[in-house]
Amino acid sequence: MRQDHIISAKQLSRADIEEVLDRAADIAADPGAFADRHDDALLGLLFFEPSTRTKMSFTAAMKRLGGDVVDMGTVESSSVKKGESLADTVRVVEGYADALVLRHPSEGSAKMASDYVDVPLINAGDGAGQHPTQTLLDLYTIRENAGFDDLTIGIMGDLKYGRTVHSLAHALTEFDARQHFVSPESLQLPRSVRYDLHEAGADVREHTSLEPVLSELDVLYVTRIQAERFPDESEYREVAGEYQIDAGTLADAKDDLTVMHPLPRVDEIDHEIDATEHAKYFQQAHNGVPVRMAILDMVLEGER
Amino acid sequence: MRQDHIISAKQLSRADIEEVLDRAADIAADPGAFADRHDDALLGLLFFEPSTRTKMSFTAAMKRLGGDVVDMGTVESSSVKKGESLADTVRVVEGYADALVLRHPSEGSAKMASDYVDVPLINAGDGAGQHPTQTLLDLYTIRENAGFDDLTIGIMGDLKYGRTVHSLAHALTEFDARQHFVSPESLQLPRSVRYDLHEAGADVREHTSLEPVLSELDVLYVTRIQAERFPDESEYREVAGEYQIDAGTLADAKDDLTVMHPLPRVDEIDHEIDATEHAKYFQQAHNGVPVRMAILDMVLEGER
Amino acid sequence: MRQDHIISAKQLSRADIEEVLDRAADIAADPGAFADRHDDALLGLLFFEPSTRTKMSFTAAMKRLGGDVVDMGTVESSSVKKGESLADTVRVVEGYADALVLRHPSEGSAKMASDYVDVPLINAGDGAGQHPTQTLLDLYTIRENAGFDDLTIGIMGDLKYGRTVHSLAHALTEFDARQHFVSPESLQLPRSVRYDLHEAGADVREHTSLEPVLSELDVLYVTRIQAERFPDESEYREVAGEYQIDAGTLADAKDDLTVMHPLPRVDEIDHEIDATEHAKYFQQAHNGVPVRMAILDMVLEGER
Repeated sequence: MRQDHIISAKQLSRADIEEVLDRAADIAADPGAFADRHDDALLGLLFFEPSTRTKMSFTAAMKRLGGDVVDMGTVESSSVKKGESLADTVRVVEGYADALVLRHPSEGSAKMASDYVDVPLINAGDGAGQHPTQTLLDLYTIRENAGFDDLTIGIMGDLKYGRTVHSLAHALTEFDARQHFVSPESLQLPRSVRYDLHEAGADVREHTSLEPVLSELDVLYVTRIQAERFPDESEYREVAGEYQIDAGTLADAKDDLTVMHPLPRVDEIDHEIDATEHAKYFQQAHNGVPVRMAILDMVLEGER
Repeated sequence: MRQDHIISAKQLSRADIEEVLDRAADIAADPGAFADRHDDALLGLLFFEPSTRTKMSFTAAMKRLGGDVVDMGTVESSSVKKGESLADTVRVVEGYADALVLRHPSEGSAKMASDYVDVPLINAGDGAGQHPTQTLLDLYTIRENAGFDDLTIGIMGDLKYGRTVHSLAHALTEFDARQHFVSPESLQLPRSVRYDLHEAGADVREHTSLEPVLSELDVLYVTRIQAERFPDESEYREVAGEYQIDAGTLADAKDDLTVMHPLPRVDEIDHEIDATEHAKYFQQAHNGVPVRMAILDMVLEGER
Repeated sequence: MRQDHIISAKQLSRADIEEVLDRAADIAADPGAFADRHDDALLGLLFFEPSTRTKMSFTAAMKRLGGDVVDMGTVESSSVKKGESLADTVRVVEGYADALVLRHPSEGSAKMASDYVDVPLINAGDGAGQHPTQTLLDLYTIRENAGFDDLTIGIMGDLKYGRTVHSLAHALTEFDARQHFVSPESLQLPRSVRYDLHEAGADVREHTSLEPVLSELDVLYVTRIQAERFPDESEYREVAGEYQIDAGTLADAKDDLTVMHPLPRVDEIDHEIDATEHAKYFQQAHNGVPVRMAILDMVLEGER
């Protein structure tokens, strides 16, 4: 893989993805071997939206490689509020760092910003757009737990607004996975995503209930249904309640079903599942470190 | 000392405390010898409340040991505001770091959080609960300046709400100190703390004025009386004024009286005292670095 | 140069300035030679006002020297809001770091703070006062692009409130530059600054339009005219519009005219200029790193 920028999971071929996952596996197996690999490198962090997992795991990843970060801080503490354009901000900050990570609320902002800079830029989420490093850590977690051979995955919850889900579904078409989408009717896949998956030759089915497909699944990927998507609180509660899982729900699942969630969760997965072998969502979050180390290692390597 | 987590000063025996203070003294005497001690270690910072001294000194301590930090940032910039539970947050963040420091507004939160993680967790203040590293740096400062032999200490100000004071008073029972508590009646020690000290065999007396005991003191520990504890501003001013000290107040004190304060101070200690030999409150704040280096060194050592 | 604190550009002689610029040039030519120079040093960051460029470039500079930072964070996340005085805050924080960088909204605050600490303190902007490291990076950029010999500079925009401009103008008197000031009448140089420049023997002229002097300029330094300086929006737009430059404006300029701006810009410089050889404002921002590395290297060297 030789990538100047990491903007979208769609830019990555199956070979690219496997190269990242293989390197991440090497890192996870022997992190000490990578501890001084990018000793003098600085990563610029530009987070225009709140983030815990993504920002902390990029920071940990860079520091586990021996490097360090230079953080813009919150929008409120920066000169962005003085009216500076994103193009100007990234052109300034590229002078302070060897690579940039950008999270921004506007779809397409990462691509636009990447056109202005010479250092590699990694998209850490652009609104309803892409979040490729999340997709890669999701794929890593799937490969680690279920493997890609003959994979059947269920993706449940908010399929309309969840960029994580769109990205993952698209990437899974590279691995010939059978995909079952489970959601309330009002939160089904957008037409454009459905079309896109169809074009990519995906094996996709849509459902309004988990029950009929649960027993076939190797992986169940749960996402949060947000109250603000519904006209009122009571309607939200009624709908959301049907897409929550607990130990009872999983009674009919395969013994080795892997349950994933991009986090934060609220009520979608009952806490009693945390202690079961199914629960891989914390491991999934932790996988952000080796996967982002692999990505940083590759883009910084390209810079040398 | 082999501690998985540092939750409360009460968990520490006299031997534990002295082990920390001895190591802190070793570090203060030759910081260079510890400069690369935890080169590849990361400390996760989870501050759910504002902090200057505690957060900065933990950061400095970790970096003086050669390590680095991964900071959640403010609650506003994190996904906590999306409704994630503390248990979930710490289980995610433990994947990014080798130890955690937690400050949280709810009493008992540190103990609860520690039950969910495998890496060592250090309580940096849990509401009205404990703040053990503050107690250790207070003890270090007392030992350094007055010693523990035949120690007489006065603790003055808000004794009702000050967790710092409760923790310190309890720890001092391990050293057979004579303790004089000086406060307005409305801010006296809570019954539970008084009982607790009594059970521990403490030599404790309570006063509403500093004057009768001042001349006996080796250490005077001053805390801030907060306006919000009083029904109105005028009552606050009247009461608070009686518990402020200036050069005149200290005329009858021992020449080597050590004056301490956990900071920030507002009007409790007049600035004219800053230049006197009595003033040890800035040194006390600075002691946060070697003491926290010692604590981090011990918990990270346990991890290897 | 042996400076305990860097408070004002006015404290720097021509020889001091050239020593900094020479060291910055050495660093820019071979940054690797400085990569481990201050391995065990910590820089305390105290930013009481928002900042992107200054804070990030100090951070990058310190880390490029092998050192690290300890950041107070925003005022909201610190104990400053509990009413602690600046004098107390700096006396606490000096215990956590080997040097301090302070940005504060009150003019004179950096000088005041420096009187309370033993470690070197660098002023990173004190309200309407000084911002000496900005002046040094401006001078570095001028020297790099136009040189100081027989220099003619135009300084345009808000000359009344811009501390950057006052500082730079004063420093340029050390280099016998011809200075043309271009601004609306309501935003001309304050009397005190004009007097000060006169006393320093400056060759200064004032204009309300760029046109008559443009063709003579080697450097054009543009600053932002802020809407809040005007009684109403329409008056602001009318005036500001006359002090914006685009490719057309520069038709009569020298081919090697250097255009600078302290950033952030809003509309003062049209984006079509970004791609021309005139545009040096991003390079100017980037120069913050080697220049601040040079300054930090000097003050930390003094500390050893």
